Amino acid sequence: MVAIDIATRVWNHTFKLDPIIRSLLDTDFYKLLMLQLIWGRYRDVDVTFELINRSHTVRISDEIDEAELRAQLDHARTVRFSKQEMIWLAGNTFYGKKQIFRPEFLQWLATFELPPYDLKRADGQYELLFHGPWMYTMMWEIPALAIINELRSRSAMRGLKRFELDVLYARAKTKMWEKVERLSSLSDIRISDFGTRRRHSFLWQRWCVEALKEKLGSRFSGSSNVLLAMQTDLEAIGTNAHELPMVAAALAETDEALSTAPYRMMQDWQEWYDGNLLVVLADTFGTRSFLEGAPDWVAQWTGFRPDSAPPIQGGEEIIDWWQERGVDPRERLLVFSDGMDIDSIEETYHHFKGRVRMSFGWGTNLTNDFRGVAPEPMPGLKPISLVCKVKEANGRPAVKLSDNPAKATGRPEEIARYQRVFGTEGAILRTVEV
Amino acid sequence: MVAIDIATRVWNHTFKLDPIIRSLLDTDFYKLLMLQLIWGRYRDVDVTFELINRSHTVRISDEIDEAELRAQLDHARTVRFSKQEMIWLAGNTFYGKKQIFRPEFLQWLATFELPPYDLKRADGQYELLFHGPWMYTMMWEIPALAIINELRSRSAMRGLKRFELDVLYARAKTKMWEKVERLSSLSDIRISDFGTRRRHSFLWQRWCVEALKEKLGSRFSGSSNVLLAMQTDLEAIGTNAHELPMVAAALAETDEALSTAPYRMMQDWQEWYDGNLLVVLADTFGTRSFLEGAPDWVAQWTGFRPDSAPPIQGGEEIIDWWQERGVDPRERLLVFSDGMDIDSIEETYHHFKGRVRMSFGWGTNLTNDFRGVAPEPMPGLKPISLVCKVKEANGRPAVKLSDNPAKATGRPEEIARYQRVFGTEGAILRTVEV
Repeated sequence: MVAIDIATRVWNHTFKLDPIIRSLLDTDFYKLLMLQLIWGRYRDVDVTFELINRSHTVRISDEIDEAELRAQLDHARTVRFSKQEMIWLAGNTFYGKKQIFRPEFLQWLATFELPPYDLKRADGQYELLFHGPWMYTMMWEIPALAIINELRSRSAMRGLKRFELDVLYARAKTKMWEKVERLSSLSDIRISDFGTRRRHSFLWQRWCVEALKEKLGSRFSGSSNVLLAMQTDLEAIGTNAHELPMVAAALAETDEALSTAPYRMMQDWQEWYDGNLLVVLADTFGTRSFLEGAPDWVAQWTGFRPDSAPPIQGGEEIIDWWQERGVDPRERLLVFSDGMDIDSIEETYHHFKGRVRMSFGWGTNLTNDFRGVAPEPMPGLKPISLVCKVKEANGRPAVKLSDNPAKATGRPEEIARYQRVFGTEGAILRTVEV
Repeated sequence: MVAIDIATRVWNHTFKLDPIIRSLLDTDFYKLLMLQLIWGRYRDVDVTFELINRSHTVRISDEIDEAELRAQLDHARTVRFSKQEMIWLAGNTFYGKKQIFRPEFLQWLATFELPPYDLKRADGQYELLFHGPWMYTMMWEIPALAIINELRSRSAMRGLKRFELDVLYARAKTKMWEKVERLSSLSDIRISDFGTRRRHSFLWQRWCVEALKEKLGSRFSGSSNVLLAMQTDLEAIGTNAHELPMVAAALAETDEALSTAPYRMMQDWQEWYDGNLLVVLADTFGTRSFLEGAPDWVAQWTGFRPDSAPPIQGGEEIIDWWQERGVDPRERLLVFSDGMDIDSIEETYHHFKGRVRMSFGWGTNLTNDFRGVAPEPMPGLKPISLVCKVKEANGRPAVKLSDNPAKATGRPEEIARYQRVFGTEGAILRTVEV
């Protein structure tokens, strides 16, 4: 008895498209935390987000059909939070706390929809912009990136036959599992999935997450993907991102106000969240100047997420800074999440073991490592360094410097101004792989 | 919409067992060809088949539960040819010929059922015997072996978790596909699946067969498995096996009659079959003596299947013999099928390319190569050298000498008599891996 459910089959072949974004929870958890703050305090700020492909040699608009991209973006705009999702957001415990989301916020969120987008082709790339109130445009970042990355993989694999595809995924599983087995030998590792935006596909991300869950047990602390966290009974992981200090800085009217903008945004944050949600992202305008200018209360936050310096160097710098302030690093947390892969995870883990609490956010190299698994080299399966960044806030240009000048974004004259205000000491140029 | 067909699910959980043999066509094609000859000419001969585990150190009865084994054997006895199968046997073209099976034979076959079996545990092994008319007992060989081998793999994998299993099959696919890719670079290869009896499982065999079909196209000549040939629109492949000369020899009343028994059986064969079905299996009592004693008409058969000598040595011996008889080997076929794997296939292919037509029957190392794919070493996944051989014909002991004394079967005193009659020249002792 080979039974195919006839209704399912009929439903399948009425598909206009195979939607990539099927839930508004298919985003990073920190987006929701930041959204609540923005909704609470920055409701009137307009922010433009912009797609940036740092892998210039990859001509995305040659790889992905514009009509297909529009169809996926349009579909994402039709998605709403379901009742089940809203109930889960209201009832679930996040980071050990009940009701992290305020009822009025959830009430507003229940009718949320992604705002319009602005798409043009230009010289092999897509110019993709999201204009409007911050509390709407910021929600495009993750789905937009996930859509483009998944369309790239679909396009790359289009010519493969059935068994070639089957073997491709078999090889990817084999490769991934070898990494999981290596992780599994690190007795105190704490690691989570941060790979939504760069994933090969939603289903592949789910496979990776479930594999980690089975093999690592509680050492796998969860997923940044809220939908996967809900579906697989994992913790939703994440705190805050560069957009907060970037917008705060863009809104600053003087150089003086600019230099203290990151700390003001953190004060906002700690009025809304506490405990393990107090994680400092210090590299937006250079970690060195952030640490030098930081008020004392910053050392009381739970941890730091060094994000653009080499992990060991970045971690040491923060440990030194804690120690100068009389804080025992063993009571603090470092979250490593910048382009990590198994080798750098192992190295960083062994380097800091016993000296500080650690946790790893594993992104692109978790959910999109298809290098060497295709039957022949397929450039379309190589992940690219694609980001969606704040371009402007209330019409004023936004900037990110980061510890790695290759990751800087913004207009050249504004970058120069920021460098004058924050300094450039401690910056280390590294190739951005992913 | 996640749709699960409710009826299928309910049907599934009413399973008493997951049957390994679900069709009487799930056997080797040569069994049906031989069966027709036996039905036509040896209807009154009783033949006992016996299970022999040549991998003595593997204690099968510790690995496989007796009740489970009985349940599978009992289930196989309930299976009948379906109407669809009978129509396919009657209407399909085999080896380029229509109606290879006579209508009266098919009429008899339509009600075929596997006869009773005789099972006992003894010293870590199962004594499994099939007594009765040859035309019934011979049909047990393949399903009995497939059942035991699949029960071994099921038992080995019982403790694995969901993702461990998933990765195990991913690794097996990866490994298998590497072999297929290597085969694919051999431009004139002709290869078929001979792996039913030793397969890891039916579903795995089907995956392997479909992978070969997709990648090699027409260079994959087909499967010895009749059910898979039918389901996947491939040629059913196979000609004849050792049981024919073994029974002919056992029935011989004098040493004189014994020495010519193999040729007499071949004369029977060529009255029923012709063309590419005329493939000589010369090693039953030693290839050397077979060739020396062979009547001239044997050189007119399409080819030889050297089965227990090293492939290159065995092939050269037959080529020499053809040339001595003025036959051009390029018009003849060698079928290599003894424990072949990718290395020996490549070596043999390059060695004989252009000198003789070649075809490969790929068995155990195609359908049961799980070495190195389990999360930790699992001896239960290592294939064993398990065979089901003729023990007696009409109460007289049967013998196989083969070119490799490690493959000899029969009572010691009978082996000695056969060695006296056929000689032992040319025998080469090799370890039997599979």
